[in-house]
Amino acid sequence: MNAPPLTILPAEYQQRRERLAEALQQRGHDLMCVFGPTRVAYLTGFFFAATERPVAAVIADDGTCSLLIPALEADHVRQQCPELQQLWVYPEYPGGGSGEHPMVTLATRLKHLRPAARSFAADLDGYEHRWGYRGPKLSEAIATPVHEHLALVDDARAIKSPAEIALIREACRWGDHAHRLMQDAIHQGGDELLISHDASLRATRDMLSELGSRYVPKAREGLPANAMFIRGKNTALPHGLHQQGGVQPGDTLVTGAYGTVGGYESELERTMHVGEPTAEFVSYFEAMVAAQDVALQAIRPGRTCASVEAEVRGFIRDELGLDHLVRHHTGHAFGLEGHEHPFIDLDDPTPIREGMIFSAEPGLYVPGLAGFRHSDTVVVTAHGAERLSLYPRDLARLVI
Amino acid sequence: MNAPPLTILPAEYQQRRERLAEALQQRGHDLMCVFGPTRVAYLTGFFFAATERPVAAVIADDGTCSLLIPALEADHVRQQCPELQQLWVYPEYPGGGSGEHPMVTLATRLKHLRPAARSFAADLDGYEHRWGYRGPKLSEAIATPVHEHLALVDDARAIKSPAEIALIREACRWGDHAHRLMQDAIHQGGDELLISHDASLRATRDMLSELGSRYVPKAREGLPANAMFIRGKNTALPHGLHQQGGVQPGDTLVTGAYGTVGGYESELERTMHVGEPTAEFVSYFEAMVAAQDVALQAIRPGRTCASVEAEVRGFIRDELGLDHLVRHHTGHAFGLEGHEHPFIDLDDPTPIREGMIFSAEPGLYVPGLAGFRHSDTVVVTAHGAERLSLYPRDLARLVI
Repeated sequence: MNAPPLTILPAEYQQRRERLAEALQQRGHDLMCVFGPTRVAYLTGFFFAATERPVAAVIADDGTCSLLIPALEADHVRQQCPELQQLWVYPEYPGGGSGEHPMVTLATRLKHLRPAARSFAADLDGYEHRWGYRGPKLSEAIATPVHEHLALVDDARAIKSPAEIALIREACRWGDHAHRLMQDAIHQGGDELLISHDASLRATRDMLSELGSRYVPKAREGLPANAMFIRGKNTALPHGLHQQGGVQPGDTLVTGAYGTVGGYESELERTMHVGEPTAEFVSYFEAMVAAQDVALQAIRPGRTCASVEAEVRGFIRDELGLDHLVRHHTGHAFGLEGHEHPFIDLDDPTPIREGMIFSAEPGLYVPGLAGFRHSDTVVVTAHGAERLSLYPRDLARLVI
Repeated sequence: MNAPPLTILPAEYQQRRERLAEALQQRGHDLMCVFGPTRVAYLTGFFFAATERPVAAVIADDGTCSLLIPALEADHVRQQCPELQQLWVYPEYPGGGSGEHPMVTLATRLKHLRPAARSFAADLDGYEHRWGYRGPKLSEAIATPVHEHLALVDDARAIKSPAEIALIREACRWGDHAHRLMQDAIHQGGDELLISHDASLRATRDMLSELGSRYVPKAREGLPANAMFIRGKNTALPHGLHQQGGVQPGDTLVTGAYGTVGGYESELERTMHVGEPTAEFVSYFEAMVAAQDVALQAIRPGRTCASVEAEVRGFIRDELGLDHLVRHHTGHAFGLEGHEHPFIDLDDPTPIREGMIFSAEPGLYVPGLAGFRHSDTVVVTAHGAERLSLYPRDLARLVI
């Protein structure tokens, strides 16, 4: 028997919509318009590059789904999601000669769908202003107040199903592989942009070759096995940029790698060193790894995000005395997007639950020296957390 | 003398802010909060990857600029935009232990900046909900109505300065180069993803090598010289995806290539054929090129976007009899983003003005056969339009 394709099956999308419909019933809403492109993909399986052409998924309280799309995407939807029958196709944004803004089209369709509807929900009151989009709010188009419930879909997204976790686990494999090819290729004088993309390209070649037709491309997404790094003092900025000049002896490298499988991403970051590290480097590196150990141990069901962060920050402050080097919180959820709600942050009280996916990445940033950060993908299990990115974390195996 | 770096200079950013301040004065607004990441970059030169951590540029009616940023980006801003003095740095989203949402921080800062302010403008009433962001609207945080003026910045962005046009012209050179390397590498059995990325990598290597320190990287932006293609029946979808199986004789290819220079993009797309094209292919190809010729001639100052589109669509309908194969309008503005307002669309009455940049890309999509679309970057001059992407358009030079 062939291994199944690496994608979420239609029945799971249907289940997501039914759960949302239940939540709508409980709140007394007739229907919900979902505009966020990732939320639309989550509920329908329709992955697309978000542009100025608005897309909306409309979930009624009986679980039925209608999709507002531009003509441009109609065949694409029929191909990707043949089970979605109710397509509301508008010719073009801003109107393509119809004389009608797509938000007005949506309003008319909603009236026909549910003539007696009294209570409208939405993730956001209208399409987000991607690219050159301009348009009225949904509440203006339907001349009725709209209840904004962003969290209704995103809270559901935070708990990953076994199928989602399997995709993220597979994505981690390819993030690890891309990182390995990149590490092996880094050499003195090499340009980080060129080394990274070459390694990503080779990792992708391996991935496509191994997975064959099990790999199901979603939106135009770049290379599905990807690795990059920044180097030198630039690493002292958490979001540092590419630098001219090539890799130098003594450089600190901070890397990032991921796979994308079935629309789901993984996360992997490592701090590395070119040549023999100094004692100062080693001491910050070991401190960072110790802080990450605390995070990896602390993430488990029954705790809150804030309590995990308090433990990590307490350790950095009390055991390491390095609280002044922290520039960001310990981690974030992710899956269909690179960062998702909730956050491992002192101000996020969200309870941690089985099936959540987090990055664990406490960082130390030493001005004028370097940044120190490992990040791993972690899934919350019944009693703790399992690391899905398996790349080495120890300094010996991260020196070039 | 060395050629200058390929970037917008601080004085031009200052000028953009002053123009906006004048517009605020005319409308009687005390200040404007700008949340859109691209608008922030346009007004400040601060390019960043938009995440759940909100960023806002606040332009007062005297032209002064304040920037709300997370601690994570503070050094980055100081490095990229040393002339921006007023930084409002919040520790972290959602709070990082401050107990305060960044939108509340912003509200407090606005009160201190202008205690007597009566009239607040914004591009959008709050930060867009990127990734896991959740938060109040600006009007809720300041308990005052906010006048939404998205167009105030975006209409200014539509008219490119000579410096912006120079960057886009340079970007076109590298889009052309990447496309050339890709065309030369396409071969039977080759995988489109691998061929594309390999060509992009080599084009980028050439670009970095030729431009040296004149190339100023902005946000983490992928490869700055980029080309890709889709193939076969997939091209009949305007936004088709990568397909398994490799390039086959008889395949139609629809390509896309761009450069990114100083944050500005170019656009170039070509329809190609593997092996001897059929008479049917040739006839659709020539029809598409003729429609693009009409577009390239029609774009000039004094006309409206709608009138250009009417001419192109009239030609496709009356001269070609192929109106039923159209799936999208003829083009769009662009620059800092891949699509920007305005659109060459029957429902966009925007007057065309000197300095605007458009794509010219009327497409014909023949179900079951292929898609036919060239796209070129065009700048509106005093009396007409100049094509900046110079890649061959004729079939003879587009057959593999």
